[in-house]
Amino acid sequence: MVEYSNQLDMAFHALSDATRRGILDRLSRGPASVSELAKPYESSFAAILQHVQVLEASGLIVTEKRGRTRECRISSNAVQRVEQWLSERRQLWESRFDRLGILLENDSPVDAGSPHSETNGDKS
Amino acid sequence: MVEYSNQLDMAFHALSDATRRGILDRLSRGPASVSELAKPYESSFAAILQHVQVLEASGLIVTEKRGRTRECRISSNAVQRVEQWLSERRQLWESRFDRLGILLENDSPVDAGSPHSETNGDKS
Repeated sequence: MVEYSNQLDMAFHALSDATRRGILDRLSRGPASVSELAKPYESSFAAILQHVQVLEASGLIVTEKRGRTRECRISSNAVQRVEQWLSERRQLWESRFDRLGILLENDSPVDAGSPHSETNGDKS
Repeated sequence: MVEYSNQLDMAFHALSDATRRGILDRLSRGPASVSELAKPYESSFAAILQHVQVLEASGLIVTEKRGRTRECRISSNAVQRVEQWLSERRQLWESRFDRLGILLENDSPVDAGSPHSETNGDKS
């Protein structure tokens, strides 16, 4: 559980930088070497390599040494796990609204003027 | 565009901390005050408030002053935008694999014995 949490920490941290998101964006169109990834940026090769290492440590990409270059590609499973975490929370929240909608629909107009109409039944 | 990128920076940064994800998790089950959010943690109220402020600045949650308390709730649109960013990259990568699969299927050895395999007279 702690390990999973650390993995999410690292994945979200990796995604919090525009250059790293740019690298992921490029990799979504196909694998690339670190030199290819560095091309659109003014940063040094070393700086891009560091970004690649952060992405690799987070699990979002995998890299493989091929001769003198290092090929990088997305790990779509890892990206999906991060998406899933967000999606579950959003859906839970939205289903809460759906339930609230049903409750309000079933609510008779007599209650419409109730002054305590907010969400007080909330368990914490 | 830059603004959108900054928003993503802040959203992913906000999500890179287990306590802040815990707060979002709690809020997915319904709105809560900062004191309610602080309950499960050993951290001080001030520390939790700071996490809430990071989440609010990122747009992932919205807060509203209600009397002496501050009610917090998820912004499901903002969560969805972050999900969407990830989902688009993953789908692009996966569709690339699908296309690759189709190419490999069409490249089956069945064509080897095709009667018009070698000399089609197209060369000039």
